[in-house]
Order: sequence, then C-alpha cells, then structure tokens
Amino acid sequence: MKKIAEFFSFGGQQLVYSHKSEINNCEMNFAVFLPPNYKNAPVLWFLSGLTCTHQNVMEKGEYRKKAADLGLAIICPDTSPRGGHVPDEKDNWQFGSGAGFYLDATQDPYYKNYNMYSYITIELPKIIESNFDLDMSRQSIFGHSMGGHGALIMSLRNPRKYKSCSAFAPIVEPSSASWSSAAYEKYLGKNKENWLNYDSVALINKGFTFPEILIDQGEADSFLDEGLRPWLLSKVCEKTSINLELRMQPNYDHSYYFISTFMTDHLNWHRDRI
Amino acid sequence: MKKIAEFFSFGGQQLVYSHKSEINNCEMNFAVFLPPNYKNAPVLWFLSGLTCTHQNVMEKGEYRKKAADLGLAIICPDTSPRGGHVPDEKDNWQFGSGAGFYLDATQDPYYKNYNMYSYITIELPKIIESNFDLDMSRQSIFGHSMGGHGALIMSLRNPRKYKSCSAFAPIVEPSSASWSSAAYEKYLGKNKENWLNYDSVALINKGFTFPEILIDQGEADSFLDEGLRPWLLSKVCEKTSINLELRMQPNYDHSYYFISTFMTDHLNWHRDRI
Repeated sequence: MKKIAEFFSFGGQQLVYSHKSEINNCEMNFAVFLPPNYKNAPVLWFLSGLTCTHQNVMEKGEYRKKAADLGLAIICPDTSPRGGHVPDEKDNWQFGSGAGFYLDATQDPYYKNYNMYSYITIELPKIIESNFDLDMSRQSIFGHSMGGHGALIMSLRNPRKYKSCSAFAPIVEPSSASWSSAAYEKYLGKNKENWLNYDSVALINKGFTFPEILIDQGEADSFLDEGLRPWLLSKVCEKTSINLELRMQPNYDHSYYFISTFMTDHLNWHRDRI
Repeated sequence: MKKIAEFFSFGGQQLVYSHKSEINNCEMNFAVFLPPNYKNAPVLWFLSGLTCTHQNVMEKGEYRKKAADLGLAIICPDTSPRGGHVPDEKDNWQFGSGAGFYLDATQDPYYKNYNMYSYITIELPKIIESNFDLDMSRQSIFGHSMGGHGALIMSLRNPRKYKSCSAFAPIVEPSSASWSSAAYEKYLGKNKENWLNYDSVALINKGFTFPEILIDQGEADSFLDEGLRPWLLSKVCEKTSINLELRMQPNYDHSYYFISTFMTDHLNWHRDRI
C-alpha cells in the first residue's frame, strides 16, 4: 500500500492510497478520512456513482467537518478496476471504467478484473484492518446512485457486517433500469436470474432484509424515472419489516450539490447506529 | 447575462452566469450562491487563486451550508479574462489566463483585457445590482492566495465599499514575491512604483488602511516562504491602527482542504461585520 496524497483537514487527515488488488487484478486507489484522535473510530464506507473515482466525493461531498465532529472514519473506494490491461469501452460511461456496478463479473473477459462486490466487502476491509487502527466491528455503508445501489445490495446481503445503510438517489432495480441492464448482461451473461444477486428490489423479494434504510432523492433528478425509481423499493419494502425512510427532496438534482446538502443528515444517521 | 448552470443546494441556489465584460473586453463567468429567502441579503465576494476559475471554490470551498444559515450571498468571479482573442502564455500558470492578479494592466497588449481590479470593484457589482435583489450597501470580501491579495488591496483602497476583509494564505507583497513580480512587470511595466498600487504591504506603508483583517495561513503551505510571507503584513500593520488577526495553522497546506476547514470561521467573521 502506497500513500499517494495527504491533506490535513478539519483537524483530521484526508489520505489517498494506491494498492494492488488481487481480486480485481490491478492497482486500485481509495481515499480515507481519519478524524482527529481516530484510534478505534468506526468505519463508514461511501460508494460513488457512475464515472466517479474516489476523488469526486472527496472534493465535493463535504463530509469532513461532520465526520471530524462525530469521530467517523470515511472510506471512499474507486468505482471500478482500471488500467491498460483491464477490458473497457472507453466511449461508454455506463460500462467498464467508472461503471463496475459493485458486482462480481462472471463473463469472459470481465471476470478477471470486475469484482467490485468482493473487493468492497472482503478485500479492501482486510487491507483497512491491517493498516489502520480502526474498529472494523463497527462498519456502515452509504453511497450515491450506482454507489447507492452498491450500499443497498451489500447491506441486504451482509446485514451483520454493516450496522446501518443509507443512500442518495440509488439505483434500486438495476436489472431493469435503462442505464444498467446492458452492463449487467456483459458482466453477468444473458441469464437474468444471475443478475438478481445484485438487485435490491429482487433481493428483498427473495427475503433478504435489513432493519432500516434512509434514502434521499431529489425530485428534480433527471435520472429519476428511467434509472432510479425509488418507488419500486418503497413498494417491495411494504411487504417486509424493512423500515425505509424515503425522503423526496423538492428541487434537488442528481449532483454533489444535492449530496452535500444532506451529507450531515446521513452522517448523523450512521453515527446513531454504528 | 446568461444563466449557464443552476443547482439547488442547502435550500438556496448555486448559479453560474456568463456575461459580456466591457472592461475586460471578453465574456466572463461568475458563480453566485443565493441563500434561502435571499431578498436583500448582504454580498460576500470570494476571489480565487492562481489557475482557478469561479468553479474551484464552488465545488470545493464548502461555503453553502454556513452561507445558507447566515443568509449571505456569495459571489465567486473568475480570476482573469479569457478567450481566443485575449493575450496569454499558455504554459505559464503565473501569468495570463487564471493569473489576472486583480490589477488593471497598463501595458500593451494586456491593458485591453486584463482589468480585473475595475472588473471586481466596479463593473461586476453593477451587474449584480441590476440583476439580483441583494443589499449592495453591505458588501464584504475575502479570497485565497492571489485572491487573498485581491481582497486585501481592494479593501485597503476601498475601505467604505467593503464592510470586512479576510483571506486564506494571501500573497501580501506581490511586487516582490517570486511568483508575481514577473507578471507585474508584464502587466504594469518596468517602473516598480506603479506596481505598489496593487501591493498590500506597500499600500499600508503609504497610509492606506482598513479596520480589521482576519488571515488564516497553513504552516505546511509549500508557498509560505517564497510567495506568501504573511509576516511582512504583520510587521507593516504594527505601525498602524489595523487590527490584523493572523492565525498560523499547524499542518495545513495551501489547498481547498485547508480553505474549507476554516470557511465557517471566515463566514462568521464577515456576518458579524457586514
């Protein structure tokens, strides 16, 4: 693991590291914010959306002030494997680099690199545990858009691993959403049954569960009707014990200007549960 | 004036406009954050540093939450004229585009476009007054690095125009600083006497004054000794009635991770005086 950037901020440290990922078979970057006196701080994962790296939320997410106050370590991974040897479609922002969809690919050639599900839930936590003096028995997860999808599926499939889950404008049913189904076919093959392991609505339908979920969704989000459709999650949760708090926010769009506005609420949500 | 971007954020509006600048003889962009219920809000100008546009602080400055709470409108201008017809040195980050130094150039060919001093103090305030229902009798100013220099010289030269002044890591004596003296010669000619109109330390030596100045300066700032040198300002202020609060901040560098950390303090400083 190699430190590639270091900034003092809000009394803590905003760090960026590069490391070799065995599971993705490439170098990966991640950002970590360590609050002041961070020893044994709990760990909150932020998963970013399509086209992002670790850097977008680090620059625009406005999480450090509150995370410093609350004593939360924030980890911001990349959204896909990267590198000259990693198969990609450079002109397609919905597939390949920046579009790992937090799944483990099964199809040739993608299965050799596109394993973001195992990377986030298994490999990177081990690296964090080995290198930082944080309390890995207290982990929570949230994210934005494709990363909100990632936070939801990881919580549903690992309800004991994560103490809490929230999302900004998540893709709740990627197996049918316009901007993800084509990627799912390339990563996971034509059998749609295999896609449902990485689909929140489908997982809940199958009986996967999580105690509480907080979602903020902008009403002026241009992706609302085609890609996000949080009402599908509301509907499927009604039949379950999942306590979904879906807050529709008038006027807000899909940008970091929206995310940063509600960041403090989400950090408080996780701090109360972690 | 043409609106080129609009984001709802923290209950207010983050807007970006493009307009024709007569004084700079080019199209200019600026950002303005209008807090909720902004009618008759006071106006706080943020001047950015070398290489920046209006966008850097808009994305990374973390000013909206507090500005919304305090009811401050924040205006973030560009740092220079721009455009194919504007003389520039593309490989020189300390001159030309992104490096207007908030002065009015006198030398050919730069005087036709590089008039950021008059643009910020005269032309843009008129445009703001004509287009937004803000209280232009209450204006304050702050900035970062080259923009900290801009805020200082504009306050010293217009002490009735601005209610308060602060800066993050300002260039306090640009006429002698390594990264600005070459630009000053190109914009203002070889006669150094003319440079002193745009030099805080020199202006104070000449008797220009301002009641109070707040400065935050990171001790780990790599530009501290060559470019910034806030001790020159401390020294010259000692002989005057200027109340300079210079806060040296251990570990902090020159980045927006530093600026955002102390943004709230600066907004409170201005709100108490505006």
